[in-house]
Amino acid sequence: MNAFVYDIPTKVYFGENQLGHLGEELKKYGDRVLVCTGGGSVKESGLLDKVLEEIKKAGLSFVELSGIEPNPKVRSVNRGAQICRDENVDVILAVGGGSVIDCAKFIAAAAFYDGDAWDIMTKKYEPEKALPIFDISTLSATGSDMDAGGVISNPDTHDKIGFSIPGLLQPKVSFLNPSLTFSVSPYQTACGSADILSHIIESYFVTPDESMYMLDRIKESLMKTVLEYAPKALEDPENYEARANLQWAASWAINGFTGAMQTSEWSCHPMEHELSAFYDITHGLGLAILTPRWMEYILDETTAGRFYDYGVNVFGIDPGLSEMEVAKAAIEKTKTFLSETLGLPSTLREIGIDESHFPVMAEKACSSSVLQGFKPLKKEDIETIYHMCL
Amino acid sequence: MNAFVYDIPTKVYFGENQLGHLGEELKKYGDRVLVCTGGGSVKESGLLDKVLEEIKKAGLSFVELSGIEPNPKVRSVNRGAQICRDENVDVILAVGGGSVIDCAKFIAAAAFYDGDAWDIMTKKYEPEKALPIFDISTLSATGSDMDAGGVISNPDTHDKIGFSIPGLLQPKVSFLNPSLTFSVSPYQTACGSADILSHIIESYFVTPDESMYMLDRIKESLMKTVLEYAPKALEDPENYEARANLQWAASWAINGFTGAMQTSEWSCHPMEHELSAFYDITHGLGLAILTPRWMEYILDETTAGRFYDYGVNVFGIDPGLSEMEVAKAAIEKTKTFLSETLGLPSTLREIGIDESHFPVMAEKACSSSVLQGFKPLKKEDIETIYHMCL
Repeated sequence: MNAFVYDIPTKVYFGENQLGHLGEELKKYGDRVLVCTGGGSVKESGLLDKVLEEIKKAGLSFVELSGIEPNPKVRSVNRGAQICRDENVDVILAVGGGSVIDCAKFIAAAAFYDGDAWDIMTKKYEPEKALPIFDISTLSATGSDMDAGGVISNPDTHDKIGFSIPGLLQPKVSFLNPSLTFSVSPYQTACGSADILSHIIESYFVTPDESMYMLDRIKESLMKTVLEYAPKALEDPENYEARANLQWAASWAINGFTGAMQTSEWSCHPMEHELSAFYDITHGLGLAILTPRWMEYILDETTAGRFYDYGVNVFGIDPGLSEMEVAKAAIEKTKTFLSETLGLPSTLREIGIDESHFPVMAEKACSSSVLQGFKPLKKEDIETIYHMCL
Repeated sequence: MNAFVYDIPTKVYFGENQLGHLGEELKKYGDRVLVCTGGGSVKESGLLDKVLEEIKKAGLSFVELSGIEPNPKVRSVNRGAQICRDENVDVILAVGGGSVIDCAKFIAAAAFYDGDAWDIMTKKYEPEKALPIFDISTLSATGSDMDAGGVISNPDTHDKIGFSIPGLLQPKVSFLNPSLTFSVSPYQTACGSADILSHIIESYFVTPDESMYMLDRIKESLMKTVLEYAPKALEDPENYEARANLQWAASWAINGFTGAMQTSEWSCHPMEHELSAFYDITHGLGLAILTPRWMEYILDETTAGRFYDYGVNVFGIDPGLSEMEVAKAAIEKTKTFLSETLGLPSTLREIGIDESHFPVMAEKACSSSVLQGFKPLKKEDIETIYHMCL
């Protein structure tokens, strides 16, 4: 059992009618705020007006950065960092989904660096300080509201790089109001739920040294929460209980608590990052297509035990069946959940992706020659998994 | 579903060989440390020497407060607060079990108050600042290492008062090394496990408004962890896996995460505090005797549903039985676990307690006329429960 450091300092206001605390919390960190937003939905919904109102009421000033893209691009990080320097910004507030929050995080670090923010992603520059980050999350998916990481894309190089800087990039304060996710479309709700599930799967399928009974049972609880409530949120988008469970599960799937002892790499995320770097597809959709194929590919006698626990404890499969029978049934149920229950496409062809870039994508996905996941994967393995997804 | 604020800033170094980080962390908060200890076991085990060595190595100075009692007394808080003022202490380090950590917390607050520290417990003085608190925990029980509260006794008045001050009394940094709990006696291991279980039960038995599917499943995971590993720790005291699971479960049982939405009072803890205020018994033992009787007393058609979930999901009782059958079986299993598996006395008479103080204890336990728990309890109800424990 590995030792670990637990360090999740984010304060969370969860529920409706908490926005009144925004001003008092921001004031603790300064008086000039950069407000980051995405494509305009927070403006249309009236949320942005309410937020700006709270900022003004607290006697703070603000400057805006709008138009942050899904799969946020490094140019937005550079743009935001420049504003921080020009406008003497004290604190950054992201209002939106995971893309906006991820972008805000790297702006917070890049604000102290005069060069290209891409240098942070390539580790040419290693940030030692960052502006304080706040967020008001409008989508349950990436869990960016409590973790120390994010993912930034560079369209020029087809690169999409994600990593975390613990102790630096965790938001100081997050506002999670499940009602704000009522308006999330069925497609984005499905993709977000696939993303949450994948985060837990990435930390659940680990070796015994990286595992702990208590945390395994908690990871199963989080997975069961997604299985229980994603369908309810799809059926009834304004079901507060469903939206609340998904939102809090999204944060805890990735904030560092359940994966504390993990030293191995994640598997599906690096493979998916290449998919969305090359084709700009929604991250959760890529994960939904990849995950069951990755499971099929790595299933063997050495890994079946873990799949057995997954099958019995998450899907309630008969524990009397053999390890391999339970494992296969669990993978089948995973596939059915993602494609039929969530209604997501289950092959790459359906979304217009063919094999033409597989070799280079596979090479990029295991940049250090082997992807050291639950079961180590070489370039050839990853290419095969991509082919299984066609 | 209630709104809530999540705010658990404690950084935790979990596992063996983490003590090397003590100096660097303490230094962030100052250079004069008050080291608080209990009855001498940390001196005998050599732990205290190692801790003082780390403090010296970091170039910090220290002063000691030893002899903090189990069920810590207000006189120790006053003594510690005086030392803080006289010696210009910057940061407090508790080395020991929950009693030492609880005492350190109220010392941290009392250091800024010239009067009797008991005024904090009676809310005559409401602290607005406190010295930073560190701890090295040697016992898995109270979870004081991540929460904002503690319990202090006043032998003169037979009062034992516990409460928390979120945002002020959470430790800044906790060191949790499961190996340090290898030497905990079977009796204290059993009492500690009963305490952990009780903390989860107190937040599991709540009304639907105070509950959330995801958190209910997590609470069940924590309870199952105690059921699984307390017997293993009793059988093999140096079983690292067992000690690690119990220790991390102890923190998460009470740090505020699972009980975030709860607005009702706890039930067994206020009743137990009177037992140990009058008879100075170990807190976990009092809880082990009280909990099954409280369950029997409150079980009826309105509460049976919650007991059904508890029975099916924690003890694996056949879900096909009726709600009431499952509920009764679950209470029986709780009783058997506490008395037979943990080997704790199951009646008050066995530990020399009779009914003589029941009326005044019952009155004190519901100081505001009704104990507003999962099922509200009046003085007469509490007296009856005490009698059921004889």
